[in-house]
Amino acid sequence: MPVGTNLLDAARQAGVELVAICGGEGICGECMIRPTAGSLSAPTLTEKAELAANDLAAGFRLACQAQVVGDVRIEIPPTSLTTPQRLQTEGQDAPDDFDPPLFVLDLQVDPPGLDDLRSDESRLRSALAKNRHPRITIERKVLAILPAILRQSAPDYRLRLVIRRNTETEHETKSLAAVLPANTKIYGLAVDVGTTKLAAYLVDLENGTTAARAGAMNPQISYGEDVISRIAYTNSHPDGAKTLQNSLVNSLNNLLDELCTEIDAGQPQIVEAVIVGNTCMHHLFAGLPVAQLGTAPYVAAVSDALLFPASDVGLKLSAGALVYMPPNIAGYVGADHIAMLIGARLKNPSQTTIALDIGTNTEISLFHNNLHWSCSCASGPAFEGAHITDGMRAAAGAIERLQIHGTEVQIKTISEQPATGICGSGILDTIAELRRHGLIDHRGVLKGQHPNLFLQKEKGGPHSAFILASADKTAIGRDIKVTRLDINEIQLAKAAIRTGVETLLSEAKITAEDIDTFLVAGAFGTYLDLDSAIRIGMFPDIGREKYEQIGNAAGSGARAMLVSLKQRQFAEQISLSVNYVELATNPAFHKLYIGSLAFP
Amino acid sequence: MPVGTNLLDAARQAGVELVAICGGEGICGECMIRPTAGSLSAPTLTEKAELAANDLAAGFRLACQAQVVGDVRIEIPPTSLTTPQRLQTEGQDAPDDFDPPLFVLDLQVDPPGLDDLRSDESRLRSALAKNRHPRITIERKVLAILPAILRQSAPDYRLRLVIRRNTETEHETKSLAAVLPANTKIYGLAVDVGTTKLAAYLVDLENGTTAARAGAMNPQISYGEDVISRIAYTNSHPDGAKTLQNSLVNSLNNLLDELCTEIDAGQPQIVEAVIVGNTCMHHLFAGLPVAQLGTAPYVAAVSDALLFPASDVGLKLSAGALVYMPPNIAGYVGADHIAMLIGARLKNPSQTTIALDIGTNTEISLFHNNLHWSCSCASGPAFEGAHITDGMRAAAGAIERLQIHGTEVQIKTISEQPATGICGSGILDTIAELRRHGLIDHRGVLKGQHPNLFLQKEKGGPHSAFILASADKTAIGRDIKVTRLDINEIQLAKAAIRTGVETLLSEAKITAEDIDTFLVAGAFGTYLDLDSAIRIGMFPDIGREKYEQIGNAAGSGARAMLVSLKQRQFAEQISLSVNYVELATNPAFHKLYIGSLAFP
Repeated sequence: MPVGTNLLDAARQAGVELVAICGGEGICGECMIRPTAGSLSAPTLTEKAELAANDLAAGFRLACQAQVVGDVRIEIPPTSLTTPQRLQTEGQDAPDDFDPPLFVLDLQVDPPGLDDLRSDESRLRSALAKNRHPRITIERKVLAILPAILRQSAPDYRLRLVIRRNTETEHETKSLAAVLPANTKIYGLAVDVGTTKLAAYLVDLENGTTAARAGAMNPQISYGEDVISRIAYTNSHPDGAKTLQNSLVNSLNNLLDELCTEIDAGQPQIVEAVIVGNTCMHHLFAGLPVAQLGTAPYVAAVSDALLFPASDVGLKLSAGALVYMPPNIAGYVGADHIAMLIGARLKNPSQTTIALDIGTNTEISLFHNNLHWSCSCASGPAFEGAHITDGMRAAAGAIERLQIHGTEVQIKTISEQPATGICGSGILDTIAELRRHGLIDHRGVLKGQHPNLFLQKEKGGPHSAFILASADKTAIGRDIKVTRLDINEIQLAKAAIRTGVETLLSEAKITAEDIDTFLVAGAFGTYLDLDSAIRIGMFPDIGREKYEQIGNAAGSGARAMLVSLKQRQFAEQISLSVNYVELATNPAFHKLYIGSLAFP
Repeated sequence: MPVGTNLLDAARQAGVELVAICGGEGICGECMIRPTAGSLSAPTLTEKAELAANDLAAGFRLACQAQVVGDVRIEIPPTSLTTPQRLQTEGQDAPDDFDPPLFVLDLQVDPPGLDDLRSDESRLRSALAKNRHPRITIERKVLAILPAILRQSAPDYRLRLVIRRNTETEHETKSLAAVLPANTKIYGLAVDVGTTKLAAYLVDLENGTTAARAGAMNPQISYGEDVISRIAYTNSHPDGAKTLQNSLVNSLNNLLDELCTEIDAGQPQIVEAVIVGNTCMHHLFAGLPVAQLGTAPYVAAVSDALLFPASDVGLKLSAGALVYMPPNIAGYVGADHIAMLIGARLKNPSQTTIALDIGTNTEISLFHNNLHWSCSCASGPAFEGAHITDGMRAAAGAIERLQIHGTEVQIKTISEQPATGICGSGILDTIAELRRHGLIDHRGVLKGQHPNLFLQKEKGGPHSAFILASADKTAIGRDIKVTRLDINEIQLAKAAIRTGVETLLSEAKITAEDIDTFLVAGAFGTYLDLDSAIRIGMFPDIGREKYEQIGNAAGSGARAMLVSLKQRQFAEQISLSVNYVELATNPAFHKLYIGSLAFP
């Protein structure tokens, strides 16, 4: 890395994805890192203004400001990483997959004149024919911008066309996706629409690299925190679905604006999008009804891949840009699960592989012997901090790691802020540690002796609890604790996930011992401690080395599909070949579930 | 015709198209007719309220109210006819052309259930496959309405699908144009968007008959009377083109509402539209820029046929409905000219045929020896009453016919109302009659002796005039007259039209004597007196029997294209094979023009 390179760029070049919401302007403070060996340029005024005094004192720097001055070794706090390093590198490289549906064609058009009275379209078509593209569909919306761009290109009338290969029907056709001034770069937009968060990426369509990325909250949260409450909102408000669609599209347009500004591009240069999300997010974005997702038998309106004009839903890309949405598997196994499987880049489909993404619903796939099963289990929102006494989302101040050493309880909070609550990975660690020290029994009942443990048996239910941080050490002025009821919530959640895994294994007539690879995707899946997850029985104890935490594989899969028709075909094959297993009606499910509730 | 049938229905069944804006409710008073032999049911209260006392006394009736009681012979005033009878009959029959792009398919879909968790789309596709349609493209917008219609169809889940044959690309594909409840009729919408007037038709897509028709003014008139002033409006207002598009689309949606109410249909049953108009109306409707139509070399943005979702421009048809717009030939020879040629149903393309539609611009086609030439000439708005002292549009009270018998001047006004001005056909008659009686010379100068003729030569120009109706006989309290300057305007207009005809003949290296058929289309072309037009030299004197007035052939052509892929192909062939002749740069034009100014 040349001396003078800032660490944000250096990290990007190395395939490490640091959070840089502000695009490296030193404003957002998200790209905190710390040198552990070697040294960096001196802290800038921006860093001194932006970083907390204690962070500065502890040696923390902003990657976008710090410059390389020689060999240096860097510690990256998990909060500064958008997703784990391993996966994103794969997502960015993968040159064998580069097979985009669009290509550019530079050409020169005859000028209009009294001796050439043909329409602008005719002159463009004649230039296309000369360039060996006699049969190109040109949509009305693209034709509408042609006269202005053509006249701006005077006097030489050179244009850059973006041509799309339409492989969706039996016979490939070509259409004009964009008309641009000469020498304009083109990009695609990939978005993972989570129920809670949006992750958006601009991908350079000429080489497949990720040019910019940005994240935001899903604005639909103000209409309901989870999928069920959003469906309820659309059922009780006549234009509810439209409201939810518009709020999402507006946020995406704002994110796109940010991304474009970051790389100095304009929306007309964004010529295709891939949008993934769970079935409900998919349907709300695509303007499909969701009522039937909220009532038995919970079927999707649409399962096949969708391809439609971005302008149809108000997404502001180039005039002819299309949105591709990969297939949904079922009402609760959506396009994001398929994108996750694409992003996971399964090396060998004959290997026995489990891939799951933990959320309010946990979608699980099992590949074995070239067959594929999937299911969704209602793991609930406990790992997102909901229904937990002091639970919170994974935000600054959340206890995300916990260890018990004798009488001492060591906690680590996100951003090293004073504790304000406990997030999913913290609860997981807590229960695993309590179990390890015999402070809860296999049923989840608190027991034994510890200074932080209070056992109160009263009428009206147990009030036993374990204090993680005492009032004097928290930011909220009271103890942060885990109660018997919290442990129950986690028991239900981990049992649901484990039962999902076991049900798929039983469908395939194999056992956990047969699993070669166990992939854990998504934000919680990235930050959870695998040993804790195994210790509480959420994941089978098949050896730590078989597990991989693959980060936001859905986002990576969306980017892969943006630049690869092969990956889209793969997505469509997955949806056709998968055996969807409905747990509610599965005979093995209930027995397995009861058996999974206990802690090992 | 059975006794008791009302005359409006009887006329429709006979292929005679009476104006019935109100849909036969007895409100609009447009369908006035008069029995000349036999009798009708007694006048209704509605007729007594609606008809003027003198009309009632003269035996006039409303066709929608009067019922057949026995054999009867009916006189139909031209104002009660939407277009001449001959053409519309042809437009309605033509069973050899019935080859619509859409067909219906009735099928039954498996219901969703816990034992069938497939998406609604999957269950529909499986029903399609069972019905031998395994490969059907289904657009997002159609999928969006599927869940609701499917659940409405419970418990038998029978649907009527409308499938579209897409023949636009090399390989025909099929797509789903609409999903409807079982046993629903389907219609198409055809519209001729004139600069001044809109004519809309609903066509039954299962048999090709016209189910309903309605007309309205083009609301864009409030932004500019002619094409040039509307282009100027879009140039001077940032959202001007959008404003003009919206105003037109709103009017079309209102017309559609009327039409649907008339036949008790819903918008989801209208599954395709054909819209024709001159190049400017075409571009404004389709959201294409028009600036380049207003400045040399006046080229169209688009010349090929367009096919796009109706919802893209806000036209409220079925969710998957497309709009077809036939090709434009040039900036001033538009899709409506091609529609007119289709509507004219040229029997034998090797016959030498002239076909023209007179307006502010007059578009002319010449077919000779299997070749085709076309041009547009700036005939100006004189025939629409503009730039004429007492000129007016062809509305009630306009003098539309005139004869001079010695000292007497006989006039006929539209709707027999007291005269308020003179419209195009009246001016034409006036000049022809003045010329026949030697009251104007070949240069257009008023001369000779007549009680109505005033010759005043003054400084500042001639003030000679001929009085058509004296103040005591008009509704405006003053004389209605034609002046030397008015005659000049008509000279310029008729010379432009004749020169256009002669230029095309000279391109084909033939003379007027070679013409086999001379077709005159459009509203003015329908009401003008052919003898008058020939007498003033606007049309060549090749024998009255070679002329045919074919009414609103553009509307008829639009309807033909709605139900016939062959006619669309024919339209596209015309646009590819036509030789467009630009008069402005044509060497023969100016000489011919000077020679055409004089009266024969």
